[in-house]
Amino acid sequence: MRMRNKPWAIDFIADHPQFVISNPTEAKGKWHEIFGNSHPIHIEVGTGKGQFITGMAGQNDSINYIGIELSESIIVTALQKAIEVDLPNLKLLNVNAEKLTEYFEDGEIDRVYLNFSDPWPKPRHAKRRLTFKTFLSIYERILVDGGEIHFKTDNQGLFEYSLTSFSEYGLRLQYVSLDLHNSKFEGNIMTEYEEKFSGLGQRIYRSEVKFLNEKLRTNKWF
Amino acid sequence: MRMRNKPWAIDFIADHPQFVISNPTEAKGKWHEIFGNSHPIHIEVGTGKGQFITGMAGQNDSINYIGIELSESIIVTALQKAIEVDLPNLKLLNVNAEKLTEYFEDGEIDRVYLNFSDPWPKPRHAKRRLTFKTFLSIYERILVDGGEIHFKTDNQGLFEYSLTSFSEYGLRLQYVSLDLHNSKFEGNIMTEYEEKFSGLGQRIYRSEVKFLNEKLRTNKWF
Repeated sequence: MRMRNKPWAIDFIADHPQFVISNPTEAKGKWHEIFGNSHPIHIEVGTGKGQFITGMAGQNDSINYIGIELSESIIVTALQKAIEVDLPNLKLLNVNAEKLTEYFEDGEIDRVYLNFSDPWPKPRHAKRRLTFKTFLSIYERILVDGGEIHFKTDNQGLFEYSLTSFSEYGLRLQYVSLDLHNSKFEGNIMTEYEEKFSGLGQRIYRSEVKFLNEKLRTNKWF
Repeated sequence: MRMRNKPWAIDFIADHPQFVISNPTEAKGKWHEIFGNSHPIHIEVGTGKGQFITGMAGQNDSINYIGIELSESIIVTALQKAIEVDLPNLKLLNVNAEKLTEYFEDGEIDRVYLNFSDPWPKPRHAKRRLTFKTFLSIYERILVDGGEIHFKTDNQGLFEYSLTSFSEYGLRLQYVSLDLHNSKFEGNIMTEYEEKFSGLGQRIYRSEVKFLNEKLRTNKWF
């Protein structure tokens, strides 16, 4: 059973349904209604303490953001940040990433962010990595044609694995940085974890991959 | 005009046609005859001073190796090594990589090695990089279906560029290491350059990519 080191978290989450959606299965197919506009929707799978998603929502008011986190005792910190910034384009979702198709209609999402996901370094745990093919197939379903995954991590093994997993799945690698903080990439919003570990001199790896639509997938594309 | 700091190189090369093939256009389609067997043929494009290709040929006697190098004053050092080891499965070719289809028949080659290729860091020189799409299309022609490119470099920018170039071309990334010398990869043969720069603490990047045949290319492959 998962540790609950913040017993008040569940009630606090339930008390803020305008930030943490309380009946997510009912939201399926209705996310643009919930946000009250037709802007693109970007989700972060494993949103943790929420610094990335609240920062992104603050920077880009014509994009809707949903931060998804399984752990109540972690998402509650993201909720506190969300309450503080109080942005109309930011929602949180306290659900399991394995079940995203229960909460999002096919093609309802425009982009998936994966930041510093658990590396699950043992080979027998590979299927738990958020870049394993079963997760990629979930993202593919809920994403629009040509939808993208933006992924960053400091974990070398997870990054190596993920690049090959993306490629095997047929995703197109559009961008790769092997040292994000010393690259020309602009507008990077750091996660709490990224701030800590890059401060210790750890390299940050980043990639953008794209689901090609069927037409492109069957041709050579250059 | 290219510098020739070894004026004796041309004569020395011409004197050793059993190692450096002297009429390469006549060899097209006849490489298995030249080697006198039907073993797979692996080429290194930009073979430099030849430490890698002579090392590989010494380790794997059931594979034929051809080291390709444009510069006479550099390939002559590879020739000296080839004379020393005197292996039946090793040949050298003093030609331009842009013209490989003049020297190899479609599908005659089983694998291409690219080691520490010139990074050509300026964007306007991208087309000179040995992983630019025009070179990939040359390798694709001379390689068998399912043929592979094995690529290593210490240059971060070239590695980042090459991963996206491979992916855009539709190649499948099968293996990637972001720190070869601290990985589990076995049997690595170092180039002269690799020995020097990894000794200085420089990371070595390595990847293996595969040309998928048409059937695989049009499907999802898992």
